[in-house]
Amino acid sequence: MTAATDQSSAKPQPTLISVDAMGGDQGPAIVVAGCSTSAKLNPDIAFILHGDKAVLGPLVNKRRELEGRCEIRHASDVVTMDDKPSQVLRTGKDTSMWSAIESVRSGEAAVAVSCGNTGALMALSMIRLKKLPGVNRPAIAVLYPSSNRQGFNVMLDVGADVRADAEDLLRYALMGTSYARNGMALTRPRVGLLNVGTEEHKGRSELKEAYELIRDQQQSAGFDFVGFVEGSDIAGDRADVIVTDGFTGNVAIKTGEGTASMIGNRLREAFEYSPLSRLASLLAYTSLQRLKRKIDPRRVNGGVFLGLNGTVVKSHGSADATGVSAAIKLAAHLSDSKFNDKLAARVAAAQPTEEALT
Amino acid sequence: MTAATDQSSAKPQPTLISVDAMGGDQGPAIVVAGCSTSAKLNPDIAFILHGDKAVLGPLVNKRRELEGRCEIRHASDVVTMDDKPSQVLRTGKDTSMWSAIESVRSGEAAVAVSCGNTGALMALSMIRLKKLPGVNRPAIAVLYPSSNRQGFNVMLDVGADVRADAEDLLRYALMGTSYARNGMALTRPRVGLLNVGTEEHKGRSELKEAYELIRDQQQSAGFDFVGFVEGSDIAGDRADVIVTDGFTGNVAIKTGEGTASMIGNRLREAFEYSPLSRLASLLAYTSLQRLKRKIDPRRVNGGVFLGLNGTVVKSHGSADATGVSAAIKLAAHLSDSKFNDKLAARVAAAQPTEEALT
Repeated sequence: MTAATDQSSAKPQPTLISVDAMGGDQGPAIVVAGCSTSAKLNPDIAFILHGDKAVLGPLVNKRRELEGRCEIRHASDVVTMDDKPSQVLRTGKDTSMWSAIESVRSGEAAVAVSCGNTGALMALSMIRLKKLPGVNRPAIAVLYPSSNRQGFNVMLDVGADVRADAEDLLRYALMGTSYARNGMALTRPRVGLLNVGTEEHKGRSELKEAYELIRDQQQSAGFDFVGFVEGSDIAGDRADVIVTDGFTGNVAIKTGEGTASMIGNRLREAFEYSPLSRLASLLAYTSLQRLKRKIDPRRVNGGVFLGLNGTVVKSHGSADATGVSAAIKLAAHLSDSKFNDKLAARVAAAQPTEEALT
Repeated sequence: MTAATDQSSAKPQPTLISVDAMGGDQGPAIVVAGCSTSAKLNPDIAFILHGDKAVLGPLVNKRRELEGRCEIRHASDVVTMDDKPSQVLRTGKDTSMWSAIESVRSGEAAVAVSCGNTGALMALSMIRLKKLPGVNRPAIAVLYPSSNRQGFNVMLDVGADVRADAEDLLRYALMGTSYARNGMALTRPRVGLLNVGTEEHKGRSELKEAYELIRDQQQSAGFDFVGFVEGSDIAGDRADVIVTDGFTGNVAIKTGEGTASMIGNRLREAFEYSPLSRLASLLAYTSLQRLKRKIDPRRVNGGVFLGLNGTVVKSHGSADATGVSAAIKLAAHLSDSKFNDKLAARVAAAQPTEEALT
């Protein structure tokens, strides 16, 4: 919390983002292009790019926007999408991913961004950055397109861990509240607990317990608990933060993405069906593009790892330059708002429950 | 299995469907209208309508298609959407839902259809029809719009129970296979087990155990096990049967429905945005209607309760006449194919596992 005041009197410094330039399906050229886009849009961002100097040097030199704002930190090795997390922990010291996390660990950057292997990134983040006091299970939070005012819900956990007990779900509610405040400027987010019905007596036993824990913290932690919500509320307007375990959350977002993609394909077929429908698609082009932008995951690309000493933003492995740029913007925004300090304070300030005291 | 040949030489008898006419948000008029639509389309279906004779009599008399094909079975009471299952079990003997299940129990109808309270319908079905030998947890199966050849996946369980162990998941695989064969005419369905990744080492421990149980039954039970699938495969083409526990399945289908409905609303907004886009929507009208029909849940309306001595089809509470008619058609189809006898035989024939033997 003191870091915020340290800088406030000084001349505004650029926000330094640590970027794993070698991860991702699309290769380093796309990551550098994303940094470049981001640099153009946000004059206050600077980068540490981690990866092979021989590859990154020429890519960076081609981008005038990056001149003087981008340090290349050499890392000879790369974590591939198939590498097992345990293996990366043992032998990954020379990888760009390890190096990118290290910049957050040392404090030179507040946030790291990677398009790489999610499992390895989570394992490295947990081991190197360590969990915040009071956090048993860190979580991955995403923004899910919804019909509420801001157009997105915060949903967590979507896959850091396949299990969560009542205490974990309470922490997710607190961390999700922090994220909604700092990432979406909601002063008093509405928090919902995902279940198979909205009645209090329904669902698994850990959910009934979590219901009471979360309800009892809403006053002191500054959120409104709307109780149980259902799958249909994830894209809806009943809550701003959806709390669930990482198994259910992961299945839910992938089901939503898969359904959206199926509808998109069917829509395309429908418009290609006849000369009349092809004409219609031309006329509706701008409207459909507007729609696509609204529900485009690239715009808010980035799952955020919460509950660690430092923030890590995971961008889609298949992200293009726009996606990488969006993830960097999110990272810079979270860094500027001293998000992680606030989150840590919020979790620490939560009334200690029995388990937390032991 | 022999029952199928019993009838083939005899004069075809009408398929008798037991219909709870009083359940559902839309009231008995919609249910009778659905029966009427169904009667028009399917000359071989006849009905037992359960409910208040004073209400149903005039509604049925107005429909010429139902003449001589519809018996009204009087039931003075109704299960409301708010009634608790336990209460219905204790005091629900005079309800139309109880009476509709009773017709299946006595054997006069093979399938019952209701638009009523799902929890009460499941509880009544379990207590009155009893579970099939070898089934510990019955399941609710739905057809989910997907990009595979038949346009739909069978997904189960979507909410009969919030938990399922490895043995239950194996039964779901067997029951889902029966449903895919008899409901969608797939001779060798592809079965997938829902998880957070497709690697064998991933996910919860009961899933790893279920993986082995299901894999070992694929030859003898006549399906292809495609292994773990993810949420994105529910609307995809990797499997025809998606096996999961009722908690995850319920959240997943509701997330999919919610996402589809959000996209539908956004699409409407996009087309109403400008004079040009409004013109486009007129030109694309037939194409969009065709799309709507393809992904319209009403066309395949009906969750099916599997694992009981008799089949129960649950139609959406908000179903209109088209939805009710679709649920009845599904019921008749399952009745004609002697679906439940085949399912029972399949579950009984599964190589007994340790737990099943105790």
